[in-house]
Amino acid sequence: MTEEYDAPTTMSARVRVVRAGGAGQGARGDHVVVEEPLRVHLTHRGVQTLLGSTMRTPGHDLELAVGLAVGEGIVRTRDDVVTVRPCRDGSGPQMDDVTVVVRDEVDVDLESLGRVSRPTSACGLCGRDEIEQIIAIAPPVRREVHVDVDVLTSLPDRMRERQNVFQRTGGLHAAALATASGELLVVREDVGRHNAVDKAIGYALLGGLVPDVLVTSGRAGFEIVQKAAMACVPVVVTVSAPTSLSVDMARRADLTLAAFVRDGRCNLYSREDRVRVSSAL
Amino acid sequence: MTEEYDAPTTMSARVRVVRAGGAGQGARGDHVVVEEPLRVHLTHRGVQTLLGSTMRTPGHDLELAVGLAVGEGIVRTRDDVVTVRPCRDGSGPQMDDVTVVVRDEVDVDLESLGRVSRPTSACGLCGRDEIEQIIAIAPPVRREVHVDVDVLTSLPDRMRERQNVFQRTGGLHAAALATASGELLVVREDVGRHNAVDKAIGYALLGGLVPDVLVTSGRAGFEIVQKAAMACVPVVVTVSAPTSLSVDMARRADLTLAAFVRDGRCNLYSREDRVRVSSAL
Repeated sequence: MTEEYDAPTTMSARVRVVRAGGAGQGARGDHVVVEEPLRVHLTHRGVQTLLGSTMRTPGHDLELAVGLAVGEGIVRTRDDVVTVRPCRDGSGPQMDDVTVVVRDEVDVDLESLGRVSRPTSACGLCGRDEIEQIIAIAPPVRREVHVDVDVLTSLPDRMRERQNVFQRTGGLHAAALATASGELLVVREDVGRHNAVDKAIGYALLGGLVPDVLVTSGRAGFEIVQKAAMACVPVVVTVSAPTSLSVDMARRADLTLAAFVRDGRCNLYSREDRVRVSSAL
Repeated sequence: MTEEYDAPTTMSARVRVVRAGGAGQGARGDHVVVEEPLRVHLTHRGVQTLLGSTMRTPGHDLELAVGLAVGEGIVRTRDDVVTVRPCRDGSGPQMDDVTVVVRDEVDVDLESLGRVSRPTSACGLCGRDEIEQIIAIAPPVRREVHVDVDVLTSLPDRMRERQNVFQRTGGLHAAALATASGELLVVREDVGRHNAVDKAIGYALLGGLVPDVLVTSGRAGFEIVQKAAMACVPVVVTVSAPTSLSVDMARRADLTLAAFVRDGRCNLYSREDRVRVSSAL
């Protein structure tokens, strides 16, 4: 399975562009990030159900599918996943349709599917009741870790150094998982911030890793914190701003939320005791 | 109705934050952007249907609802909307549930509801067939306008100057609508880029305005270009990168797509003839 979920794909495409204004005007070729739909299914006790779909940048699709299943609360450990593979019909594998085959013994509540991944700033069907439900099913993360503030604030730059496609297209969000001592376990990129997080979380679950820190580019939206909680990652680090709901979610789920992480500094919105600073606060 | 859809709301909230690393460590109060669910309904021929929901920053909720209805292809002109109002039950108005009351004479295809707004980088249910459908129903924008490159490249900075909440929270996307001569008609902010666009488009429709340019902070995702096409806005300006699908969509819908707009320069990905430059390209 390892070869399959690391299969190379085309994450950027070449298009004609006209530069206008200033020096160097004229037509040329340029790279843009690829954005295409992926449909994720769940196979459980012989029945295949649509888990959801996402507009994503192709690549690491199988990890993305597993990460989505973690976010939905369907799988929690490597053992819960029998395999994850492209859906196949008569014409061969279709990489835009993948299915996560879940162990028969896992208890899957089909009625709750789609409840978790949908409420985002972008779209989705939800309301206040559903938000309360989602917050309720994300269990508090009791795992205790300690991260030096210098290590924590270095993570976004080190993640950026490992981004491959961003340099060419300028259009990709990144997510990384790291240990408390600052080792980067995985860096993933996607046109959608949420997808990059799902890819990283899927990689960690498939590899049996237990990451301490989730790093994301961009804002700490509610759903990013929720994904960390579902994956039992106790510290969330983001370069940009949090929202009222992400702060609320982090506090309820007992997560450490660090935002505006830049230039050796950060703002801590919850459980700041997990972050070691040089002088007492 | 005007008073109602301009009702002031709380877009930012105060939370406790601990600053760590560097100088000025310690606990203090700070503002974060508010993120809360809004449910948008449609009332047509006496029947109320859920159009969709979104995690949004409260404020201009009625404009947001109208903008969503434009994006879905349900309403196209001011006359199509009888009114837009909070849903009311026995306990008074509920501003987290709003309904767009559509004129009886408008032909609404209930089965197609939700088809347009869902496919985004964040989540949603869609596939390749649905994408083709969405591209097919966004009619080419035939309206001819011409924008000077200096005017075009000045728009993002001028939009930023009019953002109110961003300065306090650092967490808001903005969208603006402008004329070809550079007059800003409206600036709206939201935690979700898509919501800011919907709010601006809803404002323009309710006011009977015909904007030439849509300006957005952040990336030009597929759904931003699609929203411009549905609202018949011929030029899209964004400070960051486009995606393969947004370029494809802009070309099919006959839109001008300008991305990486900064420092007096931009990249034009389609219909560059609408942009006047000082020297020939």
